[in-house]
Amino acid sequence: MSSCLVAVVAGVGRGTGSAIAHKFASQYLVVCLARNLESYEEVVSNINKSGGNAIGVTTDLSSAKSVKSSFDRLEMELGGDFGISAAVFNASTRPVCKPFLELTEDEYAGGYDILGRGAFLFAQATLPRLVKLVNVSSHPSSLIFTGATASIKSFAEFVSFSNGKWVLRSLAQSFAKEFGPQGVQVAHTIIDGVIGIPTTVQAMKEAGKDTQDTLISPEAIVDAYWYLHTQPKSAFSWEIDIRPFGEKW
Amino acid sequence: MSSCLVAVVAGVGRGTGSAIAHKFASQYLVVCLARNLESYEEVVSNINKSGGNAIGVTTDLSSAKSVKSSFDRLEMELGGDFGISAAVFNASTRPVCKPFLELTEDEYAGGYDILGRGAFLFAQATLPRLVKLVNVSSHPSSLIFTGATASIKSFAEFVSFSNGKWVLRSLAQSFAKEFGPQGVQVAHTIIDGVIGIPTTVQAMKEAGKDTQDTLISPEAIVDAYWYLHTQPKSAFSWEIDIRPFGEKW
Amino acid sequence: MSSCLVAVVAGVGRGTGSAIAHKFASQYLVVCLARNLESYEEVVSNINKSGGNAIGVTTDLSSAKSVKSSFDRLEMELGGDFGISAAVFNASTRPVCKPFLELTEDEYAGGYDILGRGAFLFAQATLPRLVKLVNVSSHPSSLIFTGATASIKSFAEFVSFSNGKWVLRSLAQSFAKEFGPQGVQVAHTIIDGVIGIPTTVQAMKEAGKDTQDTLISPEAIVDAYWYLHTQPKSAFSWEIDIRPFGEKW
Amino acid sequence: MSSCLVAVVAGVGRGTGSAIAHKFASQYLVVCLARNLESYEEVVSNINKSGGNAIGVTTDLSSAKSVKSSFDRLEMELGGDFGISAAVFNASTRPVCKPFLELTEDEYAGGYDILGRGAFLFAQATLPRLVKLVNVSSHPSSLIFTGATASIKSFAEFVSFSNGKWVLRSLAQSFAKEFGPQGVQVAHTIIDGVIGIPTTVQAMKEAGKDTQDTLISPEAIVDAYWYLHTQPKSAFSWEIDIRPFGEKW
Repeated sequence: MSSCLVAVVAGVGRGTGSAIAHKFASQYLVVCLARNLESYEEVVSNINKSGGNAIGVTTDLSSAKSVKSSFDRLEMELGGDFGISAAVFNASTRPVCKPFLELTEDEYAGGYDILGRGAFLFAQATLPRLVKLVNVSSHPSSLIFTGATASIKSFAEFVSFSNGKWVLRSLAQSFAKEFGPQGVQVAHTIIDGVIGIPTTVQAMKEAGKDTQDTLISPEAIVDAYWYLHTQPKSAFSWEIDIRPFGEKW
Repeated sequence: MSSCLVAVVAGVGRGTGSAIAHKFASQYLVVCLARNLESYEEVVSNINKSGGNAIGVTTDLSSAKSVKSSFDRLEMELGGDFGISAAVFNASTRPVCKPFLELTEDEYAGGYDILGRGAFLFAQATLPRLVKLVNVSSHPSSLIFTGATASIKSFAEFVSFSNGKWVLRSLAQSFAKEFGPQGVQVAHTIIDGVIGIPTTVQAMKEAGKDTQDTLISPEAIVDAYWYLHTQPKSAFSWEIDIRPFGEKW
Repeated sequence: MSSCLVAVVAGVGRGTGSAIAHKFASQYLVVCLARNLESYEEVVSNINKSGGNAIGVTTDLSSAKSVKSSFDRLEMELGGDFGISAAVFNASTRPVCKPFLELTEDEYAGGYDILGRGAFLFAQATLPRLVKLVNVSSHPSSLIFTGATASIKSFAEFVSFSNGKWVLRSLAQSFAKEFGPQGVQVAHTIIDGVIGIPTTVQAMKEAGKDTQDTLISPEAIVDAYWYLHTQPKSAFSWEIDIRPFGEKW
Repeated sequence: MSSCLVAVVAGVGRGTGSAIAHKFASQYLVVCLARNLESYEEVVSNINKSGGNAIGVTTDLSSAKSVKSSFDRLEMELGGDFGISAAVFNASTRPVCKPFLELTEDEYAGGYDILGRGAFLFAQATLPRLVKLVNVSSHPSSLIFTGATASIKSFAEFVSFSNGKWVLRSLAQSFAKEFGPQGVQVAHTIIDGVIGIPTTVQAMKEAGKDTQDTLISPEAIVDAYWYLHTQPKSAFSWEIDIRPFGEKW
């Protein structure tokens, strides 16, 4: 399997992560990382059933030990010198929304644990393998981070999530400036709206709202990731915002 | 000709405008607007020779009379009720760079004349025809504006150009909020780098610099415009930055 | 009168402009510019009655001829070589809020006429006289522009006003970079909220709202202008936002 | 001592922190927090000698235990219900500048430890005491954070510092939105330039550069903090940038 071209997607679950995995499976062996087996097993199974190649590895991205263990396993499966064509950091954290003075230190740190430390560990594991394939792959090696409205605005009673998202954007900008000149496409997306996954679609319907106007289809988001991945070195985009046409902003 | 799908590109010359016209000609009859015949005649001729359809109309975008006259002519050729699938405002102005106190009122106004008044006139002429095709075309009706680094930073001794570009971005943002919910994709690009047209390539070569690292290929820019045009309503991007991988920012 | 230290305030009316004039009158002869006599006559009269010095000059800031005529008159009164210690551009325009396709060219241009052309004319008239007093006055020569929320966000159906405010901010940034190194303090304020003048106070009261939480007192704004004016060259601020503590943002 | 009005300054050392402590000592008992005794002992001693009141408490802001211990001690000295009129978070971390792939996890985390966790701990300790004095003090209770150019731009090979500064700004914005409406002034400064402390002045002189043009005087920075602290509730500023007039930006 070592000669496969590889894409790694961190944060595969319902919605965007799953859609990204499916899209990149059209061209790559896709490694799906998620904290729980249940998050990725169906995606991996579906990709493999439909003629693609996918591997799922249970990974706690906030743990150096867990990330190392996952990449050790990948080395065994893919060969020690495997390169990565695309790495997508789509992991996130459930936002904690409460008055700041009621926030515990653990709740506060939750955003940073995944989006700050987790992104660091993911980047250190993937960037050397992305750099290796610069000028080799048909598309530039790409490292893409998933951001949100909270990446550029920090709201009241929402610091844990905002902090994490702001750090992630800081990382993405620094990486674009350090690794862009080496030929790696580093990009950050701002998903400004609610993503249409079964639970949000159901909630909108129950509220009597039109889901077509107000929800972003995961497949449409994925087109943006694929476009970013396939940009030539002559014209890299660092950031792109994505919102449904009916969204107020 | 009235049943053709139409794209209108303002500011067709060498470089980006010409590349946009060629790209959109793959699917649309392309109307090329430029101040001088010499700017667009070769592009129009090449598109028509290669099996596409293009019309060139000499237009001073800063003049209400000239813009009206051009669209009157288009109505005669395309039918009074012709719709527009995509409109690209790529017109610009030659930056005047001099100490502010040496700037004449005319030099100062130059940026606004094209990028402020011109964009207003272009938008008023195209938006009703874009709105008309919402939900009719295979892709959302799109209105795309070409910005630059100077759209988000204002430099010393450069106010005329910056003013124009800031106004253009203000317009694009307002339009996205007003016409996005109506189904029109309104987007703004930030071209952050030098575009590789014959004169800039030559200048780089003479300076002994590698043009691959430092110039943006017009064709690569155009891929961004086409991507923006083909985004589904579920996932519109308002703004995208584009720079060559070797650019410092 | 030629040995007086002079401050020029453009856009003196009720509210901020009047408060700025009063504040700067504590240290300067204040020149009040406004389109109509009624806007400034009471302010000028009050300053002169209370021991200060003020001159009012009816000026259409959007007209080169009117601005020239006003400064010619000032030269006659103050001497041809009078310097300016502080210049505040507080002029604005009544926002036109309507669907873009119903906007006339004149309505559209209204924002730019005052905030783009007017600011240009004001800056060309005052900057040479501000530069002249660098290192002479007790405080750095200062050129301050009044912005608004619409200076950084462009809303639907609001392009005329936003365009003008974005241009004004572009100007202020360019000037800060060109004239800051020459010792002139150039600053831009973002007034994010409703200013408490008699009409807005009355409207809030009629709506049963607490004016203390939601309105900005003009005197409080003026403290910001005075603080900006008195910053030492070692620590210039370019931009400051101002909002009442109860404002949502 | 419990009836004293109290200001708390975190990150007192040479330069800004020391200058802030001296300035606020004109009106408050100043509590100086720093990791090492040497950082604050001279400041505390000088304030007390010159008729002010200051207390120094050695505190590792990144440690919940250390912060708790420091505030326990303050409760003993100042009374359990002491209020705080102003709290300034001026702590920072020495930037680590190296290629990302050579960065250790500890080096990476360094920025967040002080600026993310430290600011959280400081805010949780001070905000209840700041809220308590709203509408009691002569000036609004104020919580001010010191940012830098790296708070709004993330540079190559600089992620640890940028991450921390971006988080700090996210916090400051969220706090302004949550505690501003409660009457607490929350502000963030962007210090864009090198601060003139003995070591930087010496370095500039050795490089043959004029220190007057290029260094920010700590006393001038402090004027900005004092201005922010004394703003009335009617006109709060959230953010202010500060740079020497000769700075390129």
